[in-house]
Amino acid sequence: MYSSAGTKTCAGYEGSLDYEEEDAQSFADWGVDYLKYDNCHNQGLTGSPKVSYDRFKKMSDALNKTERPIYYALCNWGEDLVWDWAQDIANAWRITGDIGDIYNKYSVSCPCDGDENRYCTRAGTQCSVMNIMEKAALTEYRGPQKDTGYNDLDMLEVGNGRMSDEAYKTHFSIWAFVKSNFLLGNDIRNMTEDTFSIITNPAIIALNQDDEIAATRVWYYGNAQDSIALWAGPSSNGDQVMALVNGGDEERKMNATLEDILFYPGSEIEDSARKTSFDIYDLWGNRMDNTTAETILSGDADDEFMAKNLYNATETSYKDGLKKNDPKLLGKKIGSVEPMGTINADVPAQGIAIYRLKPQSEKSEL
Amino acid sequence: MYSSAGTKTCAGYEGSLDYEEEDAQSFADWGVDYLKYDNCHNQGLTGSPKVSYDRFKKMSDALNKTERPIYYALCNWGEDLVWDWAQDIANAWRITGDIGDIYNKYSVSCPCDGDENRYCTRAGTQCSVMNIMEKAALTEYRGPQKDTGYNDLDMLEVGNGRMSDEAYKTHFSIWAFVKSNFLLGNDIRNMTEDTFSIITNPAIIALNQDDEIAATRVWYYGNAQDSIALWAGPSSNGDQVMALVNGGDEERKMNATLEDILFYPGSEIEDSARKTSFDIYDLWGNRMDNTTAETILSGDADDEFMAKNLYNATETSYKDGLKKNDPKLLGKKIGSVEPMGTINADVPAQGIAIYRLKPQSEKSEL
Amino acid sequence: MYSSAGTKTCAGYEGSLDYEEEDAQSFADWGVDYLKYDNCHNQGLTGSPKVSYDRFKKMSDALNKTERPIYYALCNWGEDLVWDWAQDIANAWRITGDIGDIYNKYSVSCPCDGDENRYCTRAGTQCSVMNIMEKAALTEYRGPQKDTGYNDLDMLEVGNGRMSDEAYKTHFSIWAFVKSNFLLGNDIRNMTEDTFSIITNPAIIALNQDDEIAATRVWYYGNAQDSIALWAGPSSNGDQVMALVNGGDEERKMNATLEDILFYPGSEIEDSARKTSFDIYDLWGNRMDNTTAETILSGDADDEFMAKNLYNATETSYKDGLKKNDPKLLGKKIGSVEPMGTINADVPAQGIAIYRLKPQSEKSEL
Amino acid sequence: MYSSAGTKTCAGYEGSLDYEEEDAQSFADWGVDYLKYDNCHNQGLTGSPKVSYDRFKKMSDALNKTERPIYYALCNWGEDLVWDWAQDIANAWRITGDIGDIYNKYSVSCPCDGDENRYCTRAGTQCSVMNIMEKAALTEYRGPQKDTGYNDLDMLEVGNGRMSDEAYKTHFSIWAFVKSNFLLGNDIRNMTEDTFSIITNPAIIALNQDDEIAATRVWYYGNAQDSIALWAGPSSNGDQVMALVNGGDEERKMNATLEDILFYPGSEIEDSARKTSFDIYDLWGNRMDNTTAETILSGDADDEFMAKNLYNATETSYKDGLKKNDPKLLGKKIGSVEPMGTINADVPAQGIAIYRLKPQSEKSEL
Repeated sequence: MYSSAGTKTCAGYEGSLDYEEEDAQSFADWGVDYLKYDNCHNQGLTGSPKVSYDRFKKMSDALNKTERPIYYALCNWGEDLVWDWAQDIANAWRITGDIGDIYNKYSVSCPCDGDENRYCTRAGTQCSVMNIMEKAALTEYRGPQKDTGYNDLDMLEVGNGRMSDEAYKTHFSIWAFVKSNFLLGNDIRNMTEDTFSIITNPAIIALNQDDEIAATRVWYYGNAQDSIALWAGPSSNGDQVMALVNGGDEERKMNATLEDILFYPGSEIEDSARKTSFDIYDLWGNRMDNTTAETILSGDADDEFMAKNLYNATETSYKDGLKKNDPKLLGKKIGSVEPMGTINADVPAQGIAIYRLKPQSEKSEL
Repeated sequence: MYSSAGTKTCAGYEGSLDYEEEDAQSFADWGVDYLKYDNCHNQGLTGSPKVSYDRFKKMSDALNKTERPIYYALCNWGEDLVWDWAQDIANAWRITGDIGDIYNKYSVSCPCDGDENRYCTRAGTQCSVMNIMEKAALTEYRGPQKDTGYNDLDMLEVGNGRMSDEAYKTHFSIWAFVKSNFLLGNDIRNMTEDTFSIITNPAIIALNQDDEIAATRVWYYGNAQDSIALWAGPSSNGDQVMALVNGGDEERKMNATLEDILFYPGSEIEDSARKTSFDIYDLWGNRMDNTTAETILSGDADDEFMAKNLYNATETSYKDGLKKNDPKLLGKKIGSVEPMGTINADVPAQGIAIYRLKPQSEKSEL
Repeated sequence: MYSSAGTKTCAGYEGSLDYEEEDAQSFADWGVDYLKYDNCHNQGLTGSPKVSYDRFKKMSDALNKTERPIYYALCNWGEDLVWDWAQDIANAWRITGDIGDIYNKYSVSCPCDGDENRYCTRAGTQCSVMNIMEKAALTEYRGPQKDTGYNDLDMLEVGNGRMSDEAYKTHFSIWAFVKSNFLLGNDIRNMTEDTFSIITNPAIIALNQDDEIAATRVWYYGNAQDSIALWAGPSSNGDQVMALVNGGDEERKMNATLEDILFYPGSEIEDSARKTSFDIYDLWGNRMDNTTAETILSGDADDEFMAKNLYNATETSYKDGLKKNDPKLLGKKIGSVEPMGTINADVPAQGIAIYRLKPQSEKSEL
Repeated sequence: MYSSAGTKTCAGYEGSLDYEEEDAQSFADWGVDYLKYDNCHNQGLTGSPKVSYDRFKKMSDALNKTERPIYYALCNWGEDLVWDWAQDIANAWRITGDIGDIYNKYSVSCPCDGDENRYCTRAGTQCSVMNIMEKAALTEYRGPQKDTGYNDLDMLEVGNGRMSDEAYKTHFSIWAFVKSNFLLGNDIRNMTEDTFSIITNPAIIALNQDDEIAATRVWYYGNAQDSIALWAGPSSNGDQVMALVNGGDEERKMNATLEDILFYPGSEIEDSARKTSFDIYDLWGNRMDNTTAETILSGDADDEFMAKNLYNATETSYKDGLKKNDPKLLGKKIGSVEPMGTINADVPAQGIAIYRLKPQSEKSEL
């Protein structure tokens, strides 16, 4: 379900401002599970955390009053330091303006691009993946944490056609790594094999469903039109995950030290990890091939084929699967790294190298 | 009619703050059709969207209560994110400080000039055309849209004498292209032929009256003192319009690719346009000559002369004329461009090359 | 009289917040003519124009209620866009933090120095003359205007001993040129001849008392530690005044064109001035010599000596004196400049060249 | 005692918002002497000084009502210009986000690092010592002053293990020099000799307990990742204190002139100091050796040993000790400097040279 904390929705239909209780009850009666609650036509009720909080809290209270659990996806375009207060009233909150089907191209409609104003929280439209990724990096809230919620980076553009395959992989990977809401924005009745094999990659989805803290951007050079970055973060099974992101339009040789991957500011890894070797697993290494994807998309796959080629999250949650080190969730082992060594990767244009690092001996678990 | 949402107007006469209903009724009784409502002497009632919205909404409600349709041109100098909330209570809203009769000269009275603070919305006076154009580019609201309204870039300076002829053409063109209110700021009892042939150019006025979305600034280099830019936007008749703007004081060879003109972020052009050739129409190509202008200004023109040389918008609105591809509204055909080709132009100092691109075959209409 | 719109003054004595009426009545009873009303211990009542306006308006109303004319010098350190709203409730308002006895040295206590943030209005202490001058240049309010008031740049430091003689002349000149309040900050019982001849220069004081609009900074290069600037503005007697300011520590050859001096954005000079020659008067050219100053300071001067060497503003106001072109108010004629010519000056380290330009023929008066 | 001005503490326990009186009374009943009052889960009650002031004042009033003196350490992460208003309701106030065990490494979680936004007051976590030191330099409030309070730079990280010994010395020195609250953040049951000899250095603690105004950062070059700076400030015994800080990772030869050390903007030193020679005392020159520290930490030290090696602040306060020029509080004499001369120091990587300058003759006391 979709509505707006305004007199009208962004498309000009009736909004829910001042009708929160009636509308919430209707949603509950209709069996709604998820509400995206937008910010258009808000009658000037923005400009301070208090004003925005009060407006969005009304719907929170109204949803709670229905007693039906409805996931509350608050969308105030990242205004008014939303990450400070939305965690007490919502399940997720947008931290930026609207996404476009754009990897790293400048968009005049999306303020605060590049280095102009890295702490700007003004909204926008047609924001690029790199623009949003940068804002996610800088958002102070690094959830999820117990009983709190999720930064929402906006819907996925995977499969909408104006980005490259590598760009879509990067987009999907980072949204997973920072634990954003995952909403498919493509036409799921009609998609290519490439699209299907991205949005079903269990090794990436597992990262998203892992209840560890969101990834940290360790270093970053360039701007939203051309950049390189290292991201890192822990996994609940004791692994460390890292990603080298190529924000530019040419292939790049990139590398990262374990010093940066493990011991960035805020890392809670123990010092013993300094003496640990790690096996490296490429989370895109086992990407489904196009023949398999075609079979599934065509509807010709039988149960056995499905069970072999997809991860059954209904049977075992990603979180539990990770704890069991289910091979489908780990990616493909591609090598190892010495204690405090360096990891190298050839990262394609607009691409990502996203790896799990699994400590080699039990003793040195993180 | 003019008043201010303050105790006094900017010139020190009585304002309407706290007397909205009495004044609105007077305006209606007097037969007023248009109210510019200013921001001077506002008693500190600024600083947040809510405070400004409440102040300006009082006049909106008062005007509505009179039941006379009065165009409400809200003028709060672009403060408090006015584009977010004014669309619900006004017909147009100023997005910047006051214009000066200046093309690209620095003015200390106009903050946020050049690259100092591109997202600044502080007011000012003596703002240059280039300064205002840049702010218009960056304004997040890209109206008009159904039942909403217009960004107002302030009155036209055309004919006031301190800008060049090319500068006035650029000024007039961009105000049209972003669908600003069009108010003549010159003395219409006494104007030159050059001025007359600018402010009556039907090919430009048609752009302003076209109810498609405002133009997008696709790229921009330099600052308000010297810059180049490409603007583009759709037309309701299926054309695409583009403008190369020379913000500097020397003639420049400029060019733009169809990739940029058609497929900028946010463009809704279909992919089939990648295979389309376009005819190019120069919107200034049929500018009225000075002899004709002199005849009309002297009062010697008869009805036939007028009908031949001017566009009769009373008979057929610009919008309807565009749909019929009325030649007066299209400008002059100057060439064509291959699919995904490049358009070149010699753009005079302070000048603009503003072209309609008309798809050559029906099939590839945008 | 001095008090604060807080519970205590900056020095920790009782403030007037919530006791405005009692205190205003006391001030009136005591025969107070001038109230500086400060901003310390304001109990968080800042952060928006509305909150600050309400707090300072209470004292405005209280002063008015006493029916004694008391000059209300509002001092909120330039916060909350004070120039937008103070003109309706006060006679003058501070637009910056506190001044220090510093010409152009960096001071960590004074934010927004140099180019870091030219539109910052955060308060500070130990602000340099150059820092405050820059803020005055950028303040949007260019008063005085009818029934409004004055930007206050803080007290004069002339004679306090840690700036050079040239620096004090520049400081005094610019405070005059932008029509700031003029409060002596030195010990007037004990001053040098140099100090005396600065603070009594009638050609500069006349500039301050002239009821024309404040000067405009036409151009500026550098930052608060080292800069050059041109200021210009009209005088009520038809002259144009200009100042070349050397913000650096070395002597400089500087120049300014009449194009810039006369036709900056916002100038209301008529185009006929393009054909006018001007006589140049140096406002410091007739500075009192030290022997004369010593005689006056020693108390040995008789009435005749005083009348000869000082301007008697009690007899004829500066404003009226200017209209009569009283020679004491014009400075010293040092040359002339051709129509649209250039004016050159050797400006000492930390110095100023401040000139009146008097049109040579009556016909071309500005 | 710890609580939060929110519905929950940062760790998710019950907060005190709306229960201020009950909780304050409980704290008083329990004999609490010190309350750190945090900012998590504040229900959007931020964004303006007024909103934050009101929320934190409730606890101030509640604490006062108990009539038990409880030190009120307000912690709103430096938001909403806290230094302007907290001095009226609290004993100390945090001026930045949370500290990390980091000297000068970039942390994405801590906004406003380096030169990006020097006046930013947004909160953060994992802020480096250099980041916080820079913010402290720029904070406009230069307390303590009579009956006011203290800027709080967050807990000490000394002894937590991820900074170098020199970095911890710098950290401890600057926190003392700007009169921050001093809270040990290490495990005091288990510390190294190096840690012990830092946190017990009486010459540094005396600086912290000196009731003179906080130090001023006179000059600064670089950014939070690599910088050099000079700090200076007066001592209540008539000395001047100075510190050369090496914010980089290589040893540096540094120097400072007495002009800068004595006559920075805001200094109240008399001009006679221009003719004074000074003895130089290194505040780390008498750092306790590890054998002594080991003896004390082991519990083997007798009373005599303790009296010899530690300063007994119970017997004589640091403030009184300073007035008596107690040698333990002065550091070690390492030389002298001529009138208006220059002081040189080899400053280790991440290190500090922090010296007392004692005027040589009585006459020229500052």
